[in-house]
Amino acid sequence: MKKLDSVIMGCDKSFDKADLILFGAPFDSTTSNKAGTKYASRYLRMESHSSIESYSPYLDEDLHNLNICDSGDLELPYGNAEKTLEIIEGAVNEIFDANKKPLMIGGEHLLTLAAAKAAQKKYPDLIILHFDAHADCANDILGEKLSHGTVIKRIWEIIGDGKIYQLGIRSGTKEEFLWCEKHTNLYKFNLNMLKSVADKIKDCPVYVTFDVDVMDPSIMPSTGTPEGGGATYKEFIEAAKIIKGLNVIGADFMEYCPQIAENFSAVACGMLREFIIAVS
Amino acid sequence: MKKLDSVIMGCDKSFDKADLILFGAPFDSTTSNKAGTKYASRYLRMESHSSIESYSPYLDEDLHNLNICDSGDLELPYGNAEKTLEIIEGAVNEIFDANKKPLMIGGEHLLTLAAAKAAQKKYPDLIILHFDAHADCANDILGEKLSHGTVIKRIWEIIGDGKIYQLGIRSGTKEEFLWCEKHTNLYKFNLNMLKSVADKIKDCPVYVTFDVDVMDPSIMPSTGTPEGGGATYKEFIEAAKIIKGLNVIGADFMEYCPQIAENFSAVACGMLREFIIAVS
Amino acid sequence: MKKLDSVIMGCDKSFDKADLILFGAPFDSTTSNKAGTKYASRYLRMESHSSIESYSPYLDEDLHNLNICDSGDLELPYGNAEKTLEIIEGAVNEIFDANKKPLMIGGEHLLTLAAAKAAQKKYPDLIILHFDAHADCANDILGEKLSHGTVIKRIWEIIGDGKIYQLGIRSGTKEEFLWCEKHTNLYKFNLNMLKSVADKIKDCPVYVTFDVDVMDPSIMPSTGTPEGGGATYKEFIEAAKIIKGLNVIGADFMEYCPQIAENFSAVACGMLREFIIAVS
Amino acid sequence: MKKLDSVIMGCDKSFDKADLILFGAPFDSTTSNKAGTKYASRYLRMESHSSIESYSPYLDEDLHNLNICDSGDLELPYGNAEKTLEIIEGAVNEIFDANKKPLMIGGEHLLTLAAAKAAQKKYPDLIILHFDAHADCANDILGEKLSHGTVIKRIWEIIGDGKIYQLGIRSGTKEEFLWCEKHTNLYKFNLNMLKSVADKIKDCPVYVTFDVDVMDPSIMPSTGTPEGGGATYKEFIEAAKIIKGLNVIGADFMEYCPQIAENFSAVACGMLREFIIAVS
Amino acid sequence: MKKLDSVIMGCDKSFDKADLILFGAPFDSTTSNKAGTKYASRYLRMESHSSIESYSPYLDEDLHNLNICDSGDLELPYGNAEKTLEIIEGAVNEIFDANKKPLMIGGEHLLTLAAAKAAQKKYPDLIILHFDAHADCANDILGEKLSHGTVIKRIWEIIGDGKIYQLGIRSGTKEEFLWCEKHTNLYKFNLNMLKSVADKIKDCPVYVTFDVDVMDPSIMPSTGTPEGGGATYKEFIEAAKIIKGLNVIGADFMEYCPQIAENFSAVACGMLREFIIAVS
Amino acid sequence: MKKLDSVIMGCDKSFDKADLILFGAPFDSTTSNKAGTKYASRYLRMESHSSIESYSPYLDEDLHNLNICDSGDLELPYGNAEKTLEIIEGAVNEIFDANKKPLMIGGEHLLTLAAAKAAQKKYPDLIILHFDAHADCANDILGEKLSHGTVIKRIWEIIGDGKIYQLGIRSGTKEEFLWCEKHTNLYKFNLNMLKSVADKIKDCPVYVTFDVDVMDPSIMPSTGTPEGGGATYKEFIEAAKIIKGLNVIGADFMEYCPQIAENFSAVACGMLREFIIAVS
Repeated sequence: MKKLDSVIMGCDKSFDKADLILFGAPFDSTTSNKAGTKYASRYLRMESHSSIESYSPYLDEDLHNLNICDSGDLELPYGNAEKTLEIIEGAVNEIFDANKKPLMIGGEHLLTLAAAKAAQKKYPDLIILHFDAHADCANDILGEKLSHGTVIKRIWEIIGDGKIYQLGIRSGTKEEFLWCEKHTNLYKFNLNMLKSVADKIKDCPVYVTFDVDVMDPSIMPSTGTPEGGGATYKEFIEAAKIIKGLNVIGADFMEYCPQIAENFSAVACGMLREFIIAVS
Repeated sequence: MKKLDSVIMGCDKSFDKADLILFGAPFDSTTSNKAGTKYASRYLRMESHSSIESYSPYLDEDLHNLNICDSGDLELPYGNAEKTLEIIEGAVNEIFDANKKPLMIGGEHLLTLAAAKAAQKKYPDLIILHFDAHADCANDILGEKLSHGTVIKRIWEIIGDGKIYQLGIRSGTKEEFLWCEKHTNLYKFNLNMLKSVADKIKDCPVYVTFDVDVMDPSIMPSTGTPEGGGATYKEFIEAAKIIKGLNVIGADFMEYCPQIAENFSAVACGMLREFIIAVS
Repeated sequence: MKKLDSVIMGCDKSFDKADLILFGAPFDSTTSNKAGTKYASRYLRMESHSSIESYSPYLDEDLHNLNICDSGDLELPYGNAEKTLEIIEGAVNEIFDANKKPLMIGGEHLLTLAAAKAAQKKYPDLIILHFDAHADCANDILGEKLSHGTVIKRIWEIIGDGKIYQLGIRSGTKEEFLWCEKHTNLYKFNLNMLKSVADKIKDCPVYVTFDVDVMDPSIMPSTGTPEGGGATYKEFIEAAKIIKGLNVIGADFMEYCPQIAENFSAVACGMLREFIIAVS
Repeated sequence: MKKLDSVIMGCDKSFDKADLILFGAPFDSTTSNKAGTKYASRYLRMESHSSIESYSPYLDEDLHNLNICDSGDLELPYGNAEKTLEIIEGAVNEIFDANKKPLMIGGEHLLTLAAAKAAQKKYPDLIILHFDAHADCANDILGEKLSHGTVIKRIWEIIGDGKIYQLGIRSGTKEEFLWCEKHTNLYKFNLNMLKSVADKIKDCPVYVTFDVDVMDPSIMPSTGTPEGGGATYKEFIEAAKIIKGLNVIGADFMEYCPQIAENFSAVACGMLREFIIAVS
Repeated sequence: MKKLDSVIMGCDKSFDKADLILFGAPFDSTTSNKAGTKYASRYLRMESHSSIESYSPYLDEDLHNLNICDSGDLELPYGNAEKTLEIIEGAVNEIFDANKKPLMIGGEHLLTLAAAKAAQKKYPDLIILHFDAHADCANDILGEKLSHGTVIKRIWEIIGDGKIYQLGIRSGTKEEFLWCEKHTNLYKFNLNMLKSVADKIKDCPVYVTFDVDVMDPSIMPSTGTPEGGGATYKEFIEAAKIIKGLNVIGADFMEYCPQIAENFSAVACGMLREFIIAVS
Repeated sequence: MKKLDSVIMGCDKSFDKADLILFGAPFDSTTSNKAGTKYASRYLRMESHSSIESYSPYLDEDLHNLNICDSGDLELPYGNAEKTLEIIEGAVNEIFDANKKPLMIGGEHLLTLAAAKAAQKKYPDLIILHFDAHADCANDILGEKLSHGTVIKRIWEIIGDGKIYQLGIRSGTKEEFLWCEKHTNLYKFNLNMLKSVADKIKDCPVYVTFDVDVMDPSIMPSTGTPEGGGATYKEFIEAAKIIKGLNVIGADFMEYCPQIAENFSAVACGMLREFIIAVS
């Protein structure tokens, strides 16, 4: 009797043999709109075997030919953002300590704060490349400083001015947009400037944080706070090719909510395949 | 204890202080395909607080900075199109009498007939700017003259030749298309000609009637009679910018059906925000 | 090449050879809550071939052994309740004139008014046997006298006191319940009294009007105004056996809304099979 | 122009004139399975006007005849359970200070901890009457002490042995069941013992906490952790009648998740009507 | 980094240490109505960790205390029923050869034919205890002898008269019911006779085949051919207790289709827990 | 009483009078992901009357003006791919023998093998024009040679090198892509090269096989194996215009799965209208 692997398709190397360590981070407690991203990694594992090829004709690469370990899901305490961030930071530190690259599957976007902290400790000159529909630069949400709507502000407090590049942003308060003008490199509405951003940061260590709501809701409706006017699939493929040329030292794939528009799980798996290849 | 407002987000001025008066018109009795537009205004009120910012980065304006009153829903008698039209006409007359601008949230497209009547009384040289997938110029539907498929024909009977501009139309009988060639200004398939239309009508009082099915179903599936090949979100934003430059004296946002593809409610709220800013 | 029949399964006799004439009445314009009953007959035709046997082990009868004609759907003008009722009344008159029994598949409950009128003309001592969650005895709904919430009141105006038996009723205003006490035979909450009702009316011509919301929503969620606390499937089967012993001269099956909880279409088809056998 | 009220139907008295103060508590951060209860109060307000009568034929009472104020929703910080509990406790204290009765619409079950604290302060001999599928007596969930799976344990720490009556419980660890045997009054599987419980506690001040998952999932699928084998609607009605005879000093209606099985919103509204009448 | 197990909760023993060997059989090619049972085992694995306790208060047993191995899914060739049956028969033979008990998670009901063949070879005096809404005794479906609608007839051809006990059957052609009267022990409509059946077969080796559509669709809508009038959850629990007293030598849990009514996955997991405990 | 036709709208000519013979092929047994294409033809018949005009403004043609017969559905044995292919081949031979053109509504893509066989017999210099997201050139799927993932390889075995033109392909193993380079004319990712392909094949008899998953999932989510990055509706319209200029001798419309994203049925009907006009 053959037992099926329960990893993202093709990500079946051991921790020791792998260069890229994928893990799930099932937490969505600060989500202000529809929750459910805590199921993302499980669904993607289940669906990746049903619905996609491990080979990308766009990037001409096969997941099986890369050294990737899907190490499973962290156990995270629902409702306790602070402790959750500590656990994730510890896990990412462990990966960096083993001289490997982390790839977190969210969960909500707040969790990027923990990974960014660990990355900045390892790579002091870290650049954050941020794909999102939302600026995520509020100071607090209903009084809470730890929220998926404040994560970039919290990361900026660690990493400082000019280190964060934001693309695709098309939602926020006026205050957030004004704040970004001063403190981050904000490219509104689309990914058109990604190539020129890549040219600037190509020699730096880059952490890529990808909120799936940067995509147009027609392409990726499976997220809690969709915003019209996002990236097309073809723009996504172009972005993946550009990212592949960067010095990526860690990455995450956040805010995918599999129970919304469940029939888009195959599209999500396909996107994840390209993203893994791009950052590996 | 703080009681939450139950108005479309940011539309919280009193009738007296407002320039734009928004109201819901919950009626969908002549709908030939899937009904449910009678729930549009309620859902949009509920969702607008969950899922969108009141600030539009596209139009650089915030709903809170405009003088808008969401005056609630009219009570309309299901199954009686004639009486429903009378009630709406009365309500719109009241708004015009107070020297304010109406914005009706449908409900089905037939209801535009009542608003157009009131508008034409107030502004005899009225222009109708009509966004839709369907010509809506049938003479009758299964014998009925009052139908969401005949509304433009009925308005033409009041307003006459050459006063109606139709954009995005991609569905109708051959007879309807031939009729439009003679009596309206029809721009088939897309919104490409909107800028040049705007140039022609920029000095006239314009009533904007927006059937959400002018959008591509990938962007706005939440409507009873979707048609492939519609406008993209980016085309919608361009349209909003152009409309903002017109002399809009009234408007409506019709045929949104929240129970179809409910997960697109955030996109619908986002579109409504841009539309309100554009016509206010 | 064999062309499949597009009739309710087993209801494939010609009008002339049939005793029971089934027809669809696609109209739902006065529906106060979620609409969609206009699709009922089409769906039931499509699904009846996928999902059920034509044989009922409960009633030990096969639809193929009965003489039933599914004569298709009437064309009804959406939004015009008055004209719709006229068309239905004409169609039912035609069936009675041919000395056959009508079975209408709704559509909304208002339509029963037309069938009851025709039945009362043919059978002056007519009894109405009414299964429903709602009393449907309002005088008007938002000012409209023709509504699915007023249909029993309208029928009473034709047929008079004491001729209507209502079972399963568990929703209405206090006024409706008080009115029913004086004018109809009302059995609240369940079908427990059906046997004793049947004993009383067994020598009269009976028109059976069956609103599917008499069932518990757990069994039949596919309706616009579900009410908890309804009949179980086993109670339905018992009711079908009792109805089979009556002198049924016509019947209808109303308010089934196939797009709500679509996965219950097989259950609806099974119920329809029992109902057809019971009234044929 | 008439502006519709946006309160639960019939709950339209002012705070000062009301005896029962209803409020929404939109928080679901510790939810271990599908989240979404934060939308409950909003949906129930929206749906209550579409789908139910304000009169209950079961309890022969009309919401309009009771003095109830729907005071809106609290603003609660997602992801911060501790602060959320403080806000709720404050709000409930305020209601008790005004000598009124609170009725909280959850939100997740953890929130009952705050209301119970406030109630116990006001009524030192408080009894908790707990309807649920789950024992909710874990010591912690993944290390967290504040969770919807630990709430009864936390309340017991305040209120002590023998003061909590649990009905309908059919899920928990073996340890939880053993613990309950010692510390609470546990009636497993169904509501059969409610009458005899009521007899025991009829002279005490009772806080009723109602987790909708005590119902069978066929009746109330709209909850995050449904368990087969729950109460029927008829058992619920019997329970409501019994509760009406108690000295209820406060209550809550928890864990309703409107986006799961949305077509059961009418059933949920119907249940809420009976519950409000029962505890008022 | 802790890697989560991907087995049905609590079924985590090795093949060698286990007494009961659970495996998935993802095949649904002969399904005459809605397909999708091929996903059952994967979903149940994913969901069992989210939504249920491993302890059953009904049977007072914990899955962790039993020796069960979830050995994963077989690889089955979609569209080739014959070869699929061979693979399953081989796998079940292997389990019997190791003196262990098989528990197959379907997939469609045809697959029981393979397991029954293997069981009858091992236990020549085998009894089949069959729970189902459908007789499954057609001779062929559209000319095909291997179908989920013919499986019991095919098993009878191996096992002979009087060895099959069928409970809950409420759908079939008249011919099937007549055939069953001669060749199987058929108990129509419900599970009332299970206790007396159990008394008769308590000394025989029994293979239990459980088609989830024996349940009422209100309890278990997640199946391709639901039939009204099935077993309640409480009847299911009683059945589980009775089965626990039998000499079960193998079992299966068939026709669960997770994508239909996905929100019932927790109920399905709960049922599976009881079923595993009952047959282990 | 008027009986409604139950054919795809406008396809109401008799077999003898028609030039194009449309038929349904309800079979989906080898489907590797979500099944349900067996319902496609039924749904399209039902929906075509609800939701679309018979006139195409894009191609300026009306279905009623063409000679098309919708001859109904074939009866196909679920689970038996071989026999199913024989039945379809026989049916297509019959159509060719009557000197008419077949248009098959799938069902799964494997079925094209039967139609291609019949077409190649009639037209030995046949060209296959293949629209798809997937190469469909695997040698076998889990050991099965007859599968919807192998159909183009099987057709190539009959028709040979260079006769197959594939457009829109964006999924397959690396081996499939390499194989296609040698044996077919493969145009990856989009339809950009269709015009130049059309120029090459314009004098040959062409069979057009259209897998709806060639479209972007945002436009046509109703299919079992959607792939991001497909054709837009406008590209589809351009393709239809080009196809209209070819010598099409037969065609099919495959892999439409109506139960996935059911609200896109109107879009599917619209696409089918354009496709019928293009190939007729």
